[in-house]
Amino acid sequence: MMDSNERLFLEDLCPGQRFTSGSHTLDEAQIKAFAQQFDPQPFHLDDGEAKGSLFAGLAASGWHTAAITMRLQVESGLPVAGGIIGAGGELSWPHPTRLGDTLHVETEVLEVTPSRSRPDRGMVTVRSETLNQRGEVVQTLTVKLVVPRRSPADAEPTNE
Amino acid sequence: MMDSNERLFLEDLCPGQRFTSGSHTLDEAQIKAFAQQFDPQPFHLDDGEAKGSLFAGLAASGWHTAAITMRLQVESGLPVAGGIIGAGGELSWPHPTRLGDTLHVETEVLEVTPSRSRPDRGMVTVRSETLNQRGEVVQTLTVKLVVPRRSPADAEPTNE
Repeated sequence: MMDSNERLFLEDLCPGQRFTSGSHTLDEAQIKAFAQQFDPQPFHLDDGEAKGSLFAGLAASGWHTAAITMRLQVESGLPVAGGIIGAGGELSWPHPTRLGDTLHVETEVLEVTPSRSRPDRGMVTVRSETLNQRGEVVQTLTVKLVVPRRSPADAEPTNE
Repeated sequence: MMDSNERLFLEDLCPGQRFTSGSHTLDEAQIKAFAQQFDPQPFHLDDGEAKGSLFAGLAASGWHTAAITMRLQVESGLPVAGGIIGAGGELSWPHPTRLGDTLHVETEVLEVTPSRSRPDRGMVTVRSETLNQRGEVVQTLTVKLVVPRRSPADAEPTNE
């Protein structure tokens, strides 16, 4: 197992590599606070109205699931050097996130491509699944990340 | 122009239709509060560290841009009946969102497909661009939405 403080450079990553994040449990207050601020729709805010909606019960905003996923990736899920910087990607929400759900993220490296024009970096495509405690996938995200190469100057193990 | 309270059903939507949202201005406190909660990376939190990063200055989390976009769509950008419910989509962040930026969303309907199995609904593919005050695109999102058909019971104009 990898030291959680160890940050990975482009040369440390290869297709098939997998990472697992810590977990986060959502309560009703969190779901409603996020919805109030960013996605004020009845099925994210009101239990009664949510029952009669397509979600058949209170559900977190998909963007809340995405934001929690990012938090988990930053804290423990994806220890890449230079931070997690994505230019975009493909997102899906196969199942809604419910109150009381405990989410974690599993990530697989799909592709590692050194940049031709910028010798100091490369692109890494990863696919992450955010799962709840029942093993249901509440989000998939395939994203290309910019990851720095280990330069001669910091070829020593880095502890940030 | 459409009454902002008028909600559109599947039959009201067709490819090429366009919508424009209201706007939202981000300040430093909003950028840092979101980052602290969901994307605690130095280039979203610390001006000094952000200067030396790929962003060359403080930038909002892409997920913050996405969340603000959703808020604008819910409030004024995309008046679809039954709420805005997406199953996922394709997301890109061509430019970072900076403090002081005023964002709005422009949306185009790409495809309207009645469901074959569910006579009460259909899928609507929309592409939205989130723009700043300089006209730079800070986010694109192409997403399929579930939109209800106008049923005989509520063929009257709906004011929700």
